[in-house]
Amino acid sequence: MYVNGRICDAGTAGISPFDTGFLLGYGVFETMRACAGRVFRLGRHLERLRAGCRLLGIEPVPEFAELRSAVEATLRANGLREARLRCTVTAGVETVPGAGPSAVHPTVVVAAWPVPKLVSAHSPWTAGTSARPVFSRDPLLSVKTTSRVGHVLARRQARAAGYDEALLVNESGTYTEGSVTNLFVLRAGVLLTPPVTDGLLPGLARELVLELAAGRGLKVQERSIAVRDLSCAEEAFLTNAVLGVVPLVAVDGRPVAGGLPGPVTVSLGRAFAAAVAAECAPVPPTPPEPDMVDNIRG
Amino acid sequence: MYVNGRICDAGTAGISPFDTGFLLGYGVFETMRACAGRVFRLGRHLERLRAGCRLLGIEPVPEFAELRSAVEATLRANGLREARLRCTVTAGVETVPGAGPSAVHPTVVVAAWPVPKLVSAHSPWTAGTSARPVFSRDPLLSVKTTSRVGHVLARRQARAAGYDEALLVNESGTYTEGSVTNLFVLRAGVLLTPPVTDGLLPGLARELVLELAAGRGLKVQERSIAVRDLSCAEEAFLTNAVLGVVPLVAVDGRPVAGGLPGPVTVSLGRAFAAAVAAECAPVPPTPPEPDMVDNIRG
Repeated sequence: MYVNGRICDAGTAGISPFDTGFLLGYGVFETMRACAGRVFRLGRHLERLRAGCRLLGIEPVPEFAELRSAVEATLRANGLREARLRCTVTAGVETVPGAGPSAVHPTVVVAAWPVPKLVSAHSPWTAGTSARPVFSRDPLLSVKTTSRVGHVLARRQARAAGYDEALLVNESGTYTEGSVTNLFVLRAGVLLTPPVTDGLLPGLARELVLELAAGRGLKVQERSIAVRDLSCAEEAFLTNAVLGVVPLVAVDGRPVAGGLPGPVTVSLGRAFAAAVAAECAPVPPTPPEPDMVDNIRG
Repeated sequence: MYVNGRICDAGTAGISPFDTGFLLGYGVFETMRACAGRVFRLGRHLERLRAGCRLLGIEPVPEFAELRSAVEATLRANGLREARLRCTVTAGVETVPGAGPSAVHPTVVVAAWPVPKLVSAHSPWTAGTSARPVFSRDPLLSVKTTSRVGHVLARRQARAAGYDEALLVNESGTYTEGSVTNLFVLRAGVLLTPPVTDGLLPGLARELVLELAAGRGLKVQERSIAVRDLSCAEEAFLTNAVLGVVPLVAVDGRPVAGGLPGPVTVSLGRAFAAAVAAECAPVPPTPPEPDMVDNIRG
């Protein structure tokens, strides 16, 4: 893994117990997918990470090039082609509480885990609705901060009840997102996903699915998803940068869309895997420039 | 400092970069005051810490005796008599994301910092109102989790605007607490502090002030504090386990209660310092039991 400028062994790597990430959840992170040895939309992930730093006042914001090298070096050091990567940036070490940002330099950590190849047909998931509503007016919900205890607890409670994922609702009672996924519902032929203003983190997998759906002529709408939208859905699925498109077949023990992955879900899952594979395909060696060829020939 | 069972040097101590506290803000902590070499209401702090662990599903909940030894050993190792102590417990290390609690054992960290003696007359503070409302229906607001980025940001923004502290408001627009303090207002002769149901962390300093005020025959009421209550207050102050009673003399640039610490604030500040000193006073050596004396005499 990568910790503050160098690749080191995961077993011996250490973070200061005075890191503001550890003490106060004062950090941001990105979870990324590598396919065929390349990170899918690494640039977009890192721009989002840097935007999060700016929003939280984590300074100086790590350079794009530094973060890119860190992620790529971690992937290489692990010899992984298919991987889940996580890059975490915290506000750094503050040995005296409240000493303020002058004493602080961001902490950058990257870790990688092997994952199975992205398949076009992900096994379906069930979900349970979290009892603890989020507050749509909390702007931090749209930032991937390391202060995630609410989402972690929601998922733990869902898992303890036998579900794969937790679905969160906001104060108005509409669905916002899963604990580690975004939510899509096909209703009356329109693909719906809640808008960011409902209180959620718009993931890059959500972004890709919106692109793919629009590209296939599907009607797409960012709109609040009520309980009724889900219970009457033709199809429903979840998205995650590492897992892709995950069919959602039951919520709170009641089947959604007949309890089976629907054709639009399956088709988008296939398109998602294909898009990731295509963008991560090895770049063909650039043919030499004509005049270079001439020079060589000459 | 103390890390997972042993006292070590703060400069070399390390936390795993896979600690769920670092990755997800999945932990709880307590900030405590030591006076004359003893921790004020250590038992109450540790019970609250353990209750937080149970609420978050951090298991096994560290034993009371283990936590007490850890805090006392850290205080001794630092040779401190007046100190700020922090005990953090996280859900531990999870090297494979989502591997679940079976692979996990809590992380326990204690650190100590020297602080000035608790004085009866703390220098007054100013505060700025945070623009980001909290959601009173969030039960995690009453738990001291390490997912604190919202409070940290509120305080940073207040500091950047030249204030000492941030005051948080909830979705109804009433004041709930400071970023590291609880809020009290004297209005029409009644001492008011917001109830926990408004969305706040009820600190142990708040608890002590409620005891002291009741003991002096002051009328005390847990009631929502509207903007008007603060602007029309006879007095206002903040409480914090380490700092005690801090007069609040201005909010958003407008003076509160004439801009000077009031007599009730000063009197409660004095009583607070005295109560801490009395409870932390060295225990007089127990006189030998009468029959032991007889035995010795015999």
